[in-house]
Amino acid sequence: MDLWEAVRNRRSCRAFASTPVEDEKLEMVLEAGRWAPSTVNKQPWRFTIIKNQELKQRIKDSCSKTVQFLHEVSGWKWLGRYTVDFLTQAPVIIAVTANPDDAGADKFLPGRGETYLMSCSAAIQNMLLAAHAAGLGSLWYTLYDKKELKNILSIPENMDLVSLVLIGYPEAPLNPVPRKPLEELVTVIP
Amino acid sequence: MDLWEAVRNRRSCRAFASTPVEDEKLEMVLEAGRWAPSTVNKQPWRFTIIKNQELKQRIKDSCSKTVQFLHEVSGWKWLGRYTVDFLTQAPVIIAVTANPDDAGADKFLPGRGETYLMSCSAAIQNMLLAAHAAGLGSLWYTLYDKKELKNILSIPENMDLVSLVLIGYPEAPLNPVPRKPLEELVTVIP
Repeated sequence: MDLWEAVRNRRSCRAFASTPVEDEKLEMVLEAGRWAPSTVNKQPWRFTIIKNQELKQRIKDSCSKTVQFLHEVSGWKWLGRYTVDFLTQAPVIIAVTANPDDAGADKFLPGRGETYLMSCSAAIQNMLLAAHAAGLGSLWYTLYDKKELKNILSIPENMDLVSLVLIGYPEAPLNPVPRKPLEELVTVIP
Repeated sequence: MDLWEAVRNRRSCRAFASTPVEDEKLEMVLEAGRWAPSTVNKQPWRFTIIKNQELKQRIKDSCSKTVQFLHEVSGWKWLGRYTVDFLTQAPVIIAVTANPDDAGADKFLPGRGETYLMSCSAAIQNMLLAAHAAGLGSLWYTLYDKKELKNILSIPENMDLVSLVLIGYPEAPLNPVPRKPLEELVTVIP
């Protein structure tokens, strides 16, 4: 698939069909993540693949509680209507984890050390583009209680749970989402 | 360009030719960033374009000091040989900034609120892929003193300086960089 087609037409998918994801397609998605750039080529990303339905249910139960808590503390109304059924619907959840020690030299600067997150995010973006190119839908999900989810997924203490990436076939065509025009985003220093 | 060609063959570029970057190509790079996913579609990324040579020199002087400091505190030997001449060589530096308040609901979770960084990183990865597709080299740069650089670039107090993205034509062909095999990165939960 053309790069621009992928960049422009990738969308977040929140309703997945039950069709399983082919192993070759899952491998393509992970392979795309592997080629992302990272600070001092640390390649901090690690991928935990979850297909087990019982485990997905435990993830969903935990995240439902988190979303309810967030609704209460944030006052954001849409969170009251936000259901996380996609967490059990998606045939595959990829937990992206990393050791924060795998940041670049920025970790020696006061208040810094965030570049491991940035490298993982570049890997995730590659994965979302590759999923789209493979005809799959994807969702980048972050609204969870880290400690509880790490426990459910047996993620080692020294690893950060950076994100969940859900993949599967979309249940329905995905609608375009608006973007701010470039003029609103760009400042040119003369 | 094919997505896979871009994902697999993009490399970090640390030596740029003096050839200027065409405005249309710079706009394509920024346009790719604009289409990245972000938490609750906040689109937190803002792009400050720097072409002014005097300003690049001030950035380089500041970053040279930071690298020297990092060499001393980290004990990482390669930092002693690391020069940042690319900061004045690159025809264009894009400072990617964001308001941390433009994170998703994760900002209401204790110790969280990092998703604005992740959204910006997805935008940057799109930009690096688009630069490669346009025949440009790019470098994702993070080793700077944030406070000092924000001051040099007149970045408002409430904005985080997330990264610098350098673009320009590579001075020489870029060498492949190794990657860990997938088997080292993946755990499957049965």
